[in-house]
Amino acid sequence: MVLITFKVNGSEVNINANKGDHLLSIAQRANVAIDAPCSGNGACGKCRVKLLKGELDSPKTRHISDEEYVMGWRLACVSRVMSDVVIAVPDIASAYRSRMRVADISSPKELEIFNNTRAEIEAAGIGFGNGMSTVTVQMDAPTRDDTMPDNERVAWAIQSATGAEKVTFTFLALKKLARVLRESDFNVRCVLEEQPDGSQSVMDVMPADSTTPVAGLVVDLGTTSVAALLVNMEDGSILAKASTGNGQIRYGADVINRIIESGREGGSQRLQKAVVEESISPLAEEMCAAAGIGMKNIYRMCLAGNTTMNHLLLGLYSEPVRMEPYIPTFFHCDDIRTSMLHLRLHPDAKLILAPNIGSYVGGDITAGAFASMLWNKEEMSLFIDLGTNGELVFGNNEFLMSCACSAGPAFEGGDISCGMRATDGAIDSMTIDPDTMEPHFTTIGNTKKPVGICGSGIIDIIAELFKAKIIDGKGKFRREGRRVRFDENGMGEYIIAFKEDTRGVRDISINEVDIDNFIRAKGAIFSATMTMLGSMGMDPSVLDHVYVAGGIGSGINMKNAVTIGMLPDIDLEHFSYIGNSSLSGAYAMLTSNAARQKVDELATTMTYLELSTEPGYMDSFVAACFLPHTNANLFPSVEV
Amino acid sequence: MVLITFKVNGSEVNINANKGDHLLSIAQRANVAIDAPCSGNGACGKCRVKLLKGELDSPKTRHISDEEYVMGWRLACVSRVMSDVVIAVPDIASAYRSRMRVADISSPKELEIFNNTRAEIEAAGIGFGNGMSTVTVQMDAPTRDDTMPDNERVAWAIQSATGAEKVTFTFLALKKLARVLRESDFNVRCVLEEQPDGSQSVMDVMPADSTTPVAGLVVDLGTTSVAALLVNMEDGSILAKASTGNGQIRYGADVINRIIESGREGGSQRLQKAVVEESISPLAEEMCAAAGIGMKNIYRMCLAGNTTMNHLLLGLYSEPVRMEPYIPTFFHCDDIRTSMLHLRLHPDAKLILAPNIGSYVGGDITAGAFASMLWNKEEMSLFIDLGTNGELVFGNNEFLMSCACSAGPAFEGGDISCGMRATDGAIDSMTIDPDTMEPHFTTIGNTKKPVGICGSGIIDIIAELFKAKIIDGKGKFRREGRRVRFDENGMGEYIIAFKEDTRGVRDISINEVDIDNFIRAKGAIFSATMTMLGSMGMDPSVLDHVYVAGGIGSGINMKNAVTIGMLPDIDLEHFSYIGNSSLSGAYAMLTSNAARQKVDELATTMTYLELSTEPGYMDSFVAACFLPHTNANLFPSVEV
Repeated sequence: MVLITFKVNGSEVNINANKGDHLLSIAQRANVAIDAPCSGNGACGKCRVKLLKGELDSPKTRHISDEEYVMGWRLACVSRVMSDVVIAVPDIASAYRSRMRVADISSPKELEIFNNTRAEIEAAGIGFGNGMSTVTVQMDAPTRDDTMPDNERVAWAIQSATGAEKVTFTFLALKKLARVLRESDFNVRCVLEEQPDGSQSVMDVMPADSTTPVAGLVVDLGTTSVAALLVNMEDGSILAKASTGNGQIRYGADVINRIIESGREGGSQRLQKAVVEESISPLAEEMCAAAGIGMKNIYRMCLAGNTTMNHLLLGLYSEPVRMEPYIPTFFHCDDIRTSMLHLRLHPDAKLILAPNIGSYVGGDITAGAFASMLWNKEEMSLFIDLGTNGELVFGNNEFLMSCACSAGPAFEGGDISCGMRATDGAIDSMTIDPDTMEPHFTTIGNTKKPVGICGSGIIDIIAELFKAKIIDGKGKFRREGRRVRFDENGMGEYIIAFKEDTRGVRDISINEVDIDNFIRAKGAIFSATMTMLGSMGMDPSVLDHVYVAGGIGSGINMKNAVTIGMLPDIDLEHFSYIGNSSLSGAYAMLTSNAARQKVDELATTMTYLELSTEPGYMDSFVAACFLPHTNANLFPSVEV
Repeated sequence: MVLITFKVNGSEVNINANKGDHLLSIAQRANVAIDAPCSGNGACGKCRVKLLKGELDSPKTRHISDEEYVMGWRLACVSRVMSDVVIAVPDIASAYRSRMRVADISSPKELEIFNNTRAEIEAAGIGFGNGMSTVTVQMDAPTRDDTMPDNERVAWAIQSATGAEKVTFTFLALKKLARVLRESDFNVRCVLEEQPDGSQSVMDVMPADSTTPVAGLVVDLGTTSVAALLVNMEDGSILAKASTGNGQIRYGADVINRIIESGREGGSQRLQKAVVEESISPLAEEMCAAAGIGMKNIYRMCLAGNTTMNHLLLGLYSEPVRMEPYIPTFFHCDDIRTSMLHLRLHPDAKLILAPNIGSYVGGDITAGAFASMLWNKEEMSLFIDLGTNGELVFGNNEFLMSCACSAGPAFEGGDISCGMRATDGAIDSMTIDPDTMEPHFTTIGNTKKPVGICGSGIIDIIAELFKAKIIDGKGKFRREGRRVRFDENGMGEYIIAFKEDTRGVRDISINEVDIDNFIRAKGAIFSATMTMLGSMGMDPSVLDHVYVAGGIGSGINMKNAVTIGMLPDIDLEHFSYIGNSSLSGAYAMLTSNAARQKVDELATTMTYLELSTEPGYMDSFVAACFLPHTNANLFPSVEV
C-alpha cells in the first residue's frame, strides 16, 4: 500500500492505493477531478499533474517539454505510483474554462446573432410576456379601527391596482411582509407572478423605492460546458452572462459514462451535486454579483440541456436512458421548484425545462430548433448543433425530424492537443502556402504570439493541410518539411508555431490523433445528415438553408467545413452560424410564455430517428470518415 | 467570573457568569431549558436542578425535602452561583410530558368524545373527503416499438383508471418513477392528490403490493403542549397519536415573552426551530415509527394553534401581534409547503393552518368552535377552551362572537406545586369531610398512593376546601388542623397526602399560591364570559349549553367548577366536556375539504371582542377573583 496525497484548489485529499496503480484511476476513485477528455489513453495530453514528492513511473511524452518534466509535470494517465506521493492537480474548472468553447454571447458578434434571433422570434408573432411584473402600492398604516392583517391589506391594494381577482403570497413574501411594511411606511413594491387560474402570486415584497430587477436565470446545460444569462423578466434585458465547464466532467467526458456513474451507490446525488454546486450555482452567484442582486431575486429559471443532462440534473435514476429500449423518465416535465435541486434561488422559483423528444434529442435541441426558426419557413432547412453530441433537425413549417450522433468534444476545442477556447491568442483562421507549407494565421485579439487553436481554426488547418496535400483523405501525413515531424511510431504532426514563436513552452501543432478525432466527429455529423435525409428519400440538394449552432464559434469558415466534408456541399450563401441556439431558445422560453408554448408544440410534433438502429448508418459513418468523403461525388465543389 | 457547566440530556453547555448571578437567568442566557412556569419567583418549585460540583447560595425551600437537599437538589430560581459549578438539569421535555395536561385522545373516554364529535360533524352534512386517494395501475413494459417515457406511461394508465383529464407528478414521484416501475414490473400503486383545477397530482409511487397508508398529520399546537394524530387520509382512521410539550417553553411560558424573544437577533429562527425540531418533528417521528411508515408517507398536514403559535411556527416577525394595534401578518394563510418549515415530510406535503380571526383568537379556536358544533344549533351556546390562554366563543347558527383572556397554565396542571397530568397516580377527584377535614380522593388507575394532582382534581380540592370553609372566598386558610399547615410567613397549605402515603418523597399539598393562581385563572374565564355576554346586553341565563374544551380532562366535575365560580351557574345537564376540540377540528379540516371550507367560513363571519379595550373588563376580572364571586347573586346554586 502507498499513500497518495492530491493537492487541489488549496485542499488535500488522501487515498491509499496499491503500488503500480494508475494515477488517473486513483484520482477518479478519490473523486479528484483531473482533466482527461481522451479518457486516459495518452493521446490528448490534458491530464497534466505535478509531482511534488515521491516516485512515479511515468514516461516523458511529447506533451511534456524537457523543462516541464524537470519541474515535475507528468501525464496522470501514463503514470503509475511507485511510493507515497504528493501530487498537485490543476483546478479542472479553470482548465475547462480556459479550454472548452461555449457560445455564451460574450463577443459582439455573438450578441449580434442573439439579438437577431430575438428579433426574428418577435417578427414571427411570438411576443414577449411571462406573467411576471411588479406593482407599487401605498397603503394606510393599521390603526385600532383598521386592524386588517398585513396580507389582506396588501392583497386589497394589489387588487385595486391590478384588477386581479385573487392574490396569494409565497412563503418568502409572507415571511418578509410584516417587517418590510413597517420599515417602508406601508409603501411597497411587490413582485407578482400570474398563475394559470389568473390569480396573482406575490413572490416578493420590498420597499417602494427599490429598483432591484425581477431576475430570471437562463441556462444552457451542455455535457461539457454550461452557459448562462441573468435576465430582467420585466423587459427581457440581459443583466449578466457567464459560462463555465460542467462539473460532472470528472465522472466521464460523455453521457454514457456519467449515466453508469449515476447508477452506482449515491451516484445520482454525486452527479446532481457536481452540476448544481460546481456549475450552475457558481454561475448564478457570479452573475448576481455582477448585477448587484441576491440569489433570492431570481424568480424563475429555464434550462435547456440534452435528455441525459436533464435527468442527471434532477438526480433521476438514468440507467434506462442508456439501455435498450432507451426510456427516459420524462420528455416533458411539470415545473419543478429550483429549491428541490438545492439551488438557492427564490424558494418558489420554478424551473422550466425545455422538453426532450428522445433519449438522445433533448431540450437543447427543441429550444435550439425553435431559435433556428426553421419551423417558420416553407423551404426545407437543416439545423445542426455541434456539441459533444451532434444533433440535427430537418424540416420546415410542416414537419420536423431529428436525430443525434456522438461527436465528442472536438468541435468545442476538446480532444485536440493544442485546442483551446476562442479567446485572446487562439488561432481562429489559417491558410497554408501549398508550395512552402508555411502557415499564415490570425489570432483572436491579434496577438503576435498564439497560445493554441480554437474550433474554427482546426477546421481551417485540416482543410488547408488537405488542400496542400500535406495530409491525405485519411488524415495521414504525406509530405515532409521543416513543419512536418514524425515520431518514433511514424505518427505525423504539423507545427503551426514553434515554441519560441508562442506564448507557451511547447510547439503549437496538430497531430494525426487530433486529426483523426476531428475526422470522426465530422464524419458522425455528415453521415447523420445523409441518413436522416435518406430516410425520407431525399439528399442534400433539397436543402434551402443550413443553420449551424454550438461552441465552434462565429469564425467558422463554411467553405472549409464543406472542404473537409463536414457540411453538405450546397451554395455557401445558404449557411448561417446561429450561435448558442439552445441558450437563445431557453431565453425565449423564460421570457415569453408564447415561446414556451411553441417549443412544447414543436417537441410534440417533432419525430425522432434513432440512428443506431437505422440500417446503413454505420456504413455511412465509415464512408464519411475521410476527407472530404469516400464518395467524392457528394462534394463536387471540392478539388481532391 | 465563574464557569457554569450545565449537564442536560447527555450533553454539556458551558457559560461564564459573574459570581452572585441567578442560576435561572444564566440558564436562560445559555439556552438551557429549565422548567420554570412561575417565571422564577420561588412559588411553583418546578425549577429543580441538581448541584454536582461547586457552591450555590441557595436556601432550602418547602419544595425540596431534607433528603433531596442533601442529594444536591436546589431550585434554580433562588440559587446564586458562588464558584465554578456543575449543574445537572432534568430534561424539560420529559418534565412537561409528565406534568402538563393535554387532551390527546389517549384515554378511552377521550376517544369516545372524539368519535362523538366525528359523528356529529358527519350528521351535520360535512362529509369525509380530502381529494387524496390511491390507484393501482398495471402497464406494459416499454419495448423498441413502445418507447413512451415513464411519466407519460403512468399518466395514461391513471387517466384510464380514474377518468382524470390531466395527471402531473410531484418531484418526489418523478424521482422514484424509473426505479419503482422497473423493480415492480410496471405494476404500481400511486398516491394521488386532486388539485383545484381537477387534475390529479401523483405524489408518490410504490409497488402495487404496498399497503403503506396515505398518512396525514394533525397537530394541535398549544402554547404549552402539543398533541398530534397520524391519520389515514383514505378512510380517516387514526394510525397513531402522541403528545408532548412545546419546545418553545424555555423562551417563556406565555406568548408575550416568546414574541419578545422572537424579535431579538435570530429569535424567530430559534422559536421556529424549538417547536419544529423539539415538538412537531419528534411527534411525527414517534407516530410514524408506531405506524411503521416513513415521514415521507405524510402527504398533508393540518395544524391548529393560536395566532402567536402560528406566526412563530412560520418564523414570522411577530412583534406587531403583541403591540398596539395588534396586527398579525395573516388571519388566513395560503397553503405552505411543510418543507419550508424544515419538516421532513413528503416534500410537497402542504400545511393547512386553521384560520385565525384576531391577534388573540387563533386557529385553535376556529377549529375548536367548528368541532363544538355550536354553529349548527338554534339555541345560544358558549364554547370555552381552557388552555394557557382561555378563549371563548358565544353564539348559534346565526352569529358567533369570540374573545380571549390570559389564564395561565393552571388548567393544564401547571402553576400548581403538586400539579401533574392526568395519568396514573394523579388525584382526579376529591371530597373533604367538612367536620374532620379528612380528604377522600380517587386516583387515575386507582393507584393506592397518589403522585400529584391533575386539573380536575384541583377544581375539586378548591371547591371542597371552600365548601368545608377551610378556605375563604379569597382562598386564604381559615381553619386549623393536622391537614392544615402555615409557614413562617403565615401562608397556609392543605396536605392531601402525607409523604409516607405518596409515591414520592414530599407531601402532596395545595397552598395559597396555588389557590391564588387558580382563582386568577378561573376569574379570567368567568369575567370574559360575563363581559362578552354583557357586550350584547345578555347574561348567562340565555345559555342553552356550555361546551368546555382543553387539557383539564373529562374528569372535570362541572358542579364544582360552578361552585368555585369558574363556569356560569346554569343547569348542570347543559354542560359538556368536548375534549381537545382544537385537535378534533384540525382532524376534520385535514380529512374533509367540506369541513375546511366550513371552518374558513366560520372564521370569516365570527366577530372578535378585544377584552383589553372593553370597558369594565378589569373590574369584572377583579370581582371574579373570589370564590365563587364577589357578587354571590350570580351563583344562586352555591351555598356560601
